[in-house]
Amino acid sequence: MELWFTEEWLSGLKFSVRVKSIVFTKKTRFQDLAIYDTEQLGRILTLDDVIQTTEIDEYIYHESLVHVPLFCHPNPERVLIIGGGDGGSLREALRHPSVKEATLVDIDGDVVEASKNYLPQWNQGFSDPRANVVIGDGLAFVEKAREEYDAIIVDSTDPVGPGESLFTEEFYRNVRRALRPGGVLSAQTENPILMPLVVKEIFHKIKRVFPIADLYTAPVPTYPGGWWSFTCASLGPDPKKPAREPRESWGLRYYSPAIHEKSFALGPKVERDLARS
Amino acid sequence: MELWFTEEWLSGLKFSVRVKSIVFTKKTRFQDLAIYDTEQLGRILTLDDVIQTTEIDEYIYHESLVHVPLFCHPNPERVLIIGGGDGGSLREALRHPSVKEATLVDIDGDVVEASKNYLPQWNQGFSDPRANVVIGDGLAFVEKAREEYDAIIVDSTDPVGPGESLFTEEFYRNVRRALRPGGVLSAQTENPILMPLVVKEIFHKIKRVFPIADLYTAPVPTYPGGWWSFTCASLGPDPKKPAREPRESWGLRYYSPAIHEKSFALGPKVERDLARS
Repeated sequence: MELWFTEEWLSGLKFSVRVKSIVFTKKTRFQDLAIYDTEQLGRILTLDDVIQTTEIDEYIYHESLVHVPLFCHPNPERVLIIGGGDGGSLREALRHPSVKEATLVDIDGDVVEASKNYLPQWNQGFSDPRANVVIGDGLAFVEKAREEYDAIIVDSTDPVGPGESLFTEEFYRNVRRALRPGGVLSAQTENPILMPLVVKEIFHKIKRVFPIADLYTAPVPTYPGGWWSFTCASLGPDPKKPAREPRESWGLRYYSPAIHEKSFALGPKVERDLARS
Repeated sequence: MELWFTEEWLSGLKFSVRVKSIVFTKKTRFQDLAIYDTEQLGRILTLDDVIQTTEIDEYIYHESLVHVPLFCHPNPERVLIIGGGDGGSLREALRHPSVKEATLVDIDGDVVEASKNYLPQWNQGFSDPRANVVIGDGLAFVEKAREEYDAIIVDSTDPVGPGESLFTEEFYRNVRRALRPGGVLSAQTENPILMPLVVKEIFHKIKRVFPIADLYTAPVPTYPGGWWSFTCASLGPDPKKPAREPRESWGLRYYSPAIHEKSFALGPKVERDLARS
């Protein structure tokens, strides 16, 4: 039997990976969850048939999403992760010894459970005493918070389905209010070559709400088009300047201070696409 | 009728694009050549059913392959392009006013002809009086040359089939001998995440022959894994340091001095992969 998982990246563009075995599937309250083992990408997690994270490149995505905001902040103590039920962002946030509490709010408890059971590369953070896992609506959770977090990391799905509310200007205003003075936000903001208009729209929503906002990128082979953008917004620190360095013992695989600074170089086309009104 | 072009990136990993129309196909002396129009990638050229270049991202590949070596050189006058029959690298090389002659040697004259007829975005360089197009074997051509070029750009297919001889240590020794003092080489050297061993092998072949060699990368969504490596080797200039800047009027879309410097930051994993013996 030959089994392929195929994802339609955009209408007329597909990405397929051969599946060695089906590890776990569940129709949750919110979405279709599946975990497969594949030859080329290792273990992968899909939601509604869209790849969320894979063994081969999750480190690039999570290190980029988490360490850029946490290293530009001088002393992040309280971190909030919205989404990210697989645990990869939590794992990275908890590497910072300054972090006293990392709260993860995911709407779908089944994703967190699946990670605890089947994603050993991702799930180490869940057993850390500084981790606080909340199953619930990120939008509602952030709405109630006032000046509570040094960093808020939006590790969402794409802006369709359950993740849609995490791309609204209202949400970003709530995030801003939930940040302590000098706090920072990071969010995944889609592919700048294949979806320039989507990237621009999200970026400008964030930029309207925050005094400082900069787009940065990283290669993520298993996301549509293989190049991914993130936005780091701030109430104080310069997103482009790392204030500290990771320790060698963390064993990071993608992030370094040089990668941090360079990830903000976008090239003329992306810069023009973002500037154009 | 629904038509898809599908490429197997690696065993167990496929990339597919819907074809709007078949523009041109030919079984040449060396390979199967096809040009398609697609909705998401625009016009694409395939050789032996492998995507070589697409309208949507060829500028990233060609600007990276050509401008990194030419801008680190203080005054490139004579440039040799091996392969690159589509014309994209020639177009970029000829933007440099210092270039007095750019010679392109491609083994397959049908690729050059197809570009002249069907690839207007790529083929502008062919009509430049400084362009010198040779249909022939790049290996044999370079073997005869002695201190003739300031820059040699290896715009090859993958290291299988007609392109294989362009990844041998013998070839790189011939390239070195064909360079003038202070000359530079650039070559496409495959995907560092999906094919770390291949990248390492090619890189070290080049590094054994040249006193200076550095790997750099760029996002190329339509190549396997969407992130591509290049190697810039040198008999003098520091590949990482641009000596000049492009003019605004060139209308570059990816390359900038900041991108040039950024592209050499690889992150800890790729650095370790390259160093490991």
